[in-house]
Amino acid sequence: MKKRPFVFLCTGMSLDGKISTAKRIDTRITTDDDRNFLYDLRVPCDAIMMGGRTVILDDPGLTVKSVRRQKQRLALGKTKEPVKVGIVSDISKLKINGDFFNKGDAKKIIFTTERSPKTKINELRKIADIYVYGKQKVNLKKALSKLYELGIKSVMAEGGGELIFSLLKDDLVDEINLKIGDLILGGRNAPTLCDGEGFAGTTAKQVRLISLKRKNSYLMLKYKVKRVN
Amino acid sequence: MKKRPFVFLCTGMSLDGKISTAKRIDTRITTDDDRNFLYDLRVPCDAIMMGGRTVILDDPGLTVKSVRRQKQRLALGKTKEPVKVGIVSDISKLKINGDFFNKGDAKKIIFTTERSPKTKINELRKIADIYVYGKQKVNLKKALSKLYELGIKSVMAEGGGELIFSLLKDDLVDEINLKIGDLILGGRNAPTLCDGEGFAGTTAKQVRLISLKRKNSYLMLKYKVKRVN
Repeated sequence: MKKRPFVFLCTGMSLDGKISTAKRIDTRITTDDDRNFLYDLRVPCDAIMMGGRTVILDDPGLTVKSVRRQKQRLALGKTKEPVKVGIVSDISKLKINGDFFNKGDAKKIIFTTERSPKTKINELRKIADIYVYGKQKVNLKKALSKLYELGIKSVMAEGGGELIFSLLKDDLVDEINLKIGDLILGGRNAPTLCDGEGFAGTTAKQVRLISLKRKNSYLMLKYKVKRVN
Repeated sequence: MKKRPFVFLCTGMSLDGKISTAKRIDTRITTDDDRNFLYDLRVPCDAIMMGGRTVILDDPGLTVKSVRRQKQRLALGKTKEPVKVGIVSDISKLKINGDFFNKGDAKKIIFTTERSPKTKINELRKIADIYVYGKQKVNLKKALSKLYELGIKSVMAEGGGELIFSLLKDDLVDEINLKIGDLILGGRNAPTLCDGEGFAGTTAKQVRLISLKRKNSYLMLKYKVKRVN
């Protein structure tokens, strides 16, 4: 297999595994410290990756706002902000004027498929690097190899559940950073940490807990994903 | 409000909040110790409660198999096995010859609604106590008051996610006992710890962590549900 960057997940969820409400309304999943937890993990990484639905619905800026963290990055020999990577099967609904493409100075890379309209691809090429890697679904292995080739050695995947499932399914995740909040969101249709079609019991991804911190009623966990081979 | 028993949840889930696979195939959610964790919690409780889908699909026996635990129960002044309580809106598909109704010596109580066919209710009355409490959904407050009236002071709810959501929504849960396993099951359609229509961010149920144990890569957690009033 070709070389790929180190890939780690980083997200917060409710005690029942939800990363948003059933109606996808932005909510305080864990605590005010959440963002610091997230921002600190962004410091040493070369790129932040997000799935299409998350980029389209949440349109996150993914910037490094604090000057202290920007300086930490520069001291590590990195760019001020990590590269933004979107895995978007169909780019039709991407907001070209939104935060993802316009906040901060980071380079933007979109991996998409043949489902995307060519006119929109050409339009987007003015503000981002676009790679068409797949017919229906983005070929994630190929995308990660390309990122490695571009000098990206570590990727932080922030979600959503569909991207996380696809990454795990293809054995492309090394580590999971998770905050479990002190609330229950419920919802059979609410997005969870890992969605997709799901694994069978026998093919479920095994993880190994390597670090556990408790703060009041929430937990910060770090797991290694066990390699299948 | 009328008096009701102490209600605690007890279940195991994958790291991503799933209590079964997307195809609902029985799987090792946590570890071999699971059942001991569950069985130990069953010892001091007066009744075990399950939702309709779980009773119909899994048809659990809910017995206390170990003689040691049966003796512990008798020493506590309890019956050898806890009462089995099913919350089943429509009893049409209940297996009268299944494990729920035929394993062990415990009393069986079914709370149902006007959706259930009268002929099946009459049939079931021969082997269980049936209460018709509601038109479409079982009135859980009324059901718990009735259990209290029958001398049941503690109820362990084992699932599934739909019942747990309904109990939490009606503020009828005191405590949550949860095992988080060392695996990821995924699946946007897999049942989770708490399903139903879900809470909005503002009405999410707040919980307080009161006990945390780690064993290898899995966690055993106990939370109190914060009272709204």
